[in-house]
Amino acid sequence: AVRLRVREALGAREPVDAVRVQGWVRSVRSQKEVLFLHINDGSSLESLQVVADPSLENRDLTFGSAVEVQGKLVKSPHRKQNMELQAQTIRVVGPCDIWSFPLKMKERHPLEYVRQFPHLRCRNNTLGSLLRIRSEATAGIHSFFQDNGYVHIHTPIITSNDCEGAGELFQIETSSEAKESAEKTHFFKVPAFLTVSGQLHLEVMAGAFTHVFTFGPTFRAENSQSRRHLAEFYMVEAELSFTEGLQDIMQVMEDLFKTVTSTVLSKCPRDIELFHKYIAPAQKPENFVIPFIVILKTFFSSCRISYSEAVEILKQASQAFTFKPEWGCDLQTEHEKYLVKHCGEVPVFVINYPYDLKPFYMRDNEDGPRHTVAAVDLLVPGIGELCGGSLREERLPFLESRLQRLGLTDAYQWYLDLRKFGSVPHGGFGMGFERYLQYILGVDNIKDVIPFPRFSHSCLL
Amino acid sequence: AVRLRVREALGAREPVDAVRVQGWVRSVRSQKEVLFLHINDGSSLESLQVVADPSLENRDLTFGSAVEVQGKLVKSPHRKQNMELQAQTIRVVGPCDIWSFPLKMKERHPLEYVRQFPHLRCRNNTLGSLLRIRSEATAGIHSFFQDNGYVHIHTPIITSNDCEGAGELFQIETSSEAKESAEKTHFFKVPAFLTVSGQLHLEVMAGAFTHVFTFGPTFRAENSQSRRHLAEFYMVEAELSFTEGLQDIMQVMEDLFKTVTSTVLSKCPRDIELFHKYIAPAQKPENFVIPFIVILKTFFSSCRISYSEAVEILKQASQAFTFKPEWGCDLQTEHEKYLVKHCGEVPVFVINYPYDLKPFYMRDNEDGPRHTVAAVDLLVPGIGELCGGSLREERLPFLESRLQRLGLTDAYQWYLDLRKFGSVPHGGFGMGFERYLQYILGVDNIKDVIPFPRFSHSCLL
Repeated sequence: AVRLRVREALGAREPVDAVRVQGWVRSVRSQKEVLFLHINDGSSLESLQVVADPSLENRDLTFGSAVEVQGKLVKSPHRKQNMELQAQTIRVVGPCDIWSFPLKMKERHPLEYVRQFPHLRCRNNTLGSLLRIRSEATAGIHSFFQDNGYVHIHTPIITSNDCEGAGELFQIETSSEAKESAEKTHFFKVPAFLTVSGQLHLEVMAGAFTHVFTFGPTFRAENSQSRRHLAEFYMVEAELSFTEGLQDIMQVMEDLFKTVTSTVLSKCPRDIELFHKYIAPAQKPENFVIPFIVILKTFFSSCRISYSEAVEILKQASQAFTFKPEWGCDLQTEHEKYLVKHCGEVPVFVINYPYDLKPFYMRDNEDGPRHTVAAVDLLVPGIGELCGGSLREERLPFLESRLQRLGLTDAYQWYLDLRKFGSVPHGGFGMGFERYLQYILGVDNIKDVIPFPRFSHSCLL
Repeated sequence: AVRLRVREALGAREPVDAVRVQGWVRSVRSQKEVLFLHINDGSSLESLQVVADPSLENRDLTFGSAVEVQGKLVKSPHRKQNMELQAQTIRVVGPCDIWSFPLKMKERHPLEYVRQFPHLRCRNNTLGSLLRIRSEATAGIHSFFQDNGYVHIHTPIITSNDCEGAGELFQIETSSEAKESAEKTHFFKVPAFLTVSGQLHLEVMAGAFTHVFTFGPTFRAENSQSRRHLAEFYMVEAELSFTEGLQDIMQVMEDLFKTVTSTVLSKCPRDIELFHKYIAPAQKPENFVIPFIVILKTFFSSCRISYSEAVEILKQASQAFTFKPEWGCDLQTEHEKYLVKHCGEVPVFVINYPYDLKPFYMRDNEDGPRHTVAAVDLLVPGIGELCGGSLREERLPFLESRLQRLGLTDAYQWYLDLRKFGSVPHGGFGMGFERYLQYILGVDNIKDVIPFPRFSHSCLL
């Protein structure tokens, strides 16, 4: 008998006489004349209906059990499905102790409920769909960059650069060292940290390849229980040489978003549909009004405003903010939300931020008296910041004097070197992968879009 | 003028009147009548020849400088190249201080030399080729699994599982905690470590999707200066449900190897050629006798022997070993080398290792008196172990009693759960990505196949 995956069986054009399907039972319905099963193997959201003689029933054949079914694949008489399997034999490969199994048949468990079982929640429909979407989005990101001539770089996870100021860091020691707390004998000779961004390492590579990207884990040791933050999360980062302005960076952000989203939509429409029907409306009744297709189409009608314009818009708002909008201060979540609403609930690019707010590597716009750098943030409805990027300071004297003032000249000698040997105008950005998934799927809590969430006080499994 | 990348310009079929090429100067040759430049932008190993009037020369136009050249792309009169660029303008975008630049024009720097400059070595031909190959191999790995219906899973980097026994671990603390050495107040409430393998997390997923894979960084805090070990390295791991035996695992190892290697070979033949011509023969004169194509073809004629057979072969060897071969002891590097040689310098699968040598999760073969588990290692010429895998113990009573004896029952309650709720025969393997690159390229030192090597006493940048 030919072994078929559920997705293949469901998509078959013609009946097949002898097939073998393996998977887990999603439902059992025993009638007088006939036994109905639904088998799922994770290859698709849809399960395969199995029709069997009641004599094939056995007490181990329950929800959650693993089975192998042999029989005939035939056209289904029901409109809702294409094919069904007429079972000749059903073998229970592994029974399921349904009394202690926390998932129940045909129940739509809330995301908060399944989150308690990190080792079992992938067997739930919603998480199953999420993980298939995440996998397709991952593949889509790799394809997008590869198709556009970018070289993929594995930027390091462990790094000795600790002074980027992107937030609280995790430090690394060998287990034995940690016990002795001997700060003198570091494994790497120097203090070592988990990366907060691959940007500086990508800049190294942008001096040899004009287009580079990385897609890997990044870390923040922030004691936050927010629905938008994790201690370990994934970031897509790209760096481009020979840029002509911030528009080059924004263009790639937009192209990336659109290409990956279209890919995911075409690869797993049913999985996406599940989120748009059952998850998004329940979780964000106000925000999730725009269907997905509309997000994609309207993206090009996105808003582009400068930071200074943004502050003016906020100052003129009738709304009362907790943080008073003021030129020179960071935009708060409440401000970002207002700006997105003001622009009509579409993605908003905010460019040219105050010089004093931003890290040393961002390119000086040499304007004034309100001195800015060529930075760009992409804000999206319901999430806030999805991407952040900038042109980098490629001019040696500018960078030297800035590092000098910060007392970082020695630590960044290698970074200055990049400007001494064939420096070029360049820039790049990072996109938070989990926030991207939250946005396109309408998922409220970031813990529900990553297989094994890590956050303060929690590192299960 | 249309902007072309060097690769596109070199591959053009027809002359183009107005083009613009940007990149870094790889050579300058000034003759009386004509100025020759070679421009490289990392899109290919080959540089584009630029032919210009000597009046366009300027003192900043040196090796390593960044330039933009505008002109006509025409058929080259030389046999060695297809197209060349007749320059109308040459603009130096960023000069290069050639006196302090550690790379020199037209010099073939040894790998050990460029290793000293982690921020500049990517501008060297060999590392440039390596990084393009690494990028294509990465894409090839994702495609292989995606094309075969595997779901990609981001297994966690930070984990609280510390008892797998795969080697010395790195422990994580927040920077502030590390300073106080307060072991009581962990960020994650429990001690947290950098992952040594995503296997157990993949097994979770193999209970919902029958085919899963991960491809990410893994860590070992071993104080090794070996040419085969890094503290941070990349591993491809796959897990399959409903396996019928070890041959299922070996088949995927073999398919993965062959598919990815064929992809890389077709995508960057010139980069591969560089290694096979200049790097491999110099670094491993005895080992690197087989051309690449032959490796691929002979893979199916690989040897499959049991651990017990391997020990017999070693015992009968005329060679004197430092470690005496003995049933029940680990195979040493010298043993692996001998076995590969014995089989004719082809890849060798060794299966069924002693029960007492292997971790708790490997499937009991229930044989005796020489008790084994269903494990498999793939040994390759010049490297030793490239892949390691096993069937996993899916039978609850076997796993329970083994964990009990090890005193690990409480820590692995979640892992036991996987066997209570629809357990299936399954197995998987991991392949060291850097070792894979070392093998196909003939690179002796693992530090030369990763962008930013991390090892004991070294964490540059």
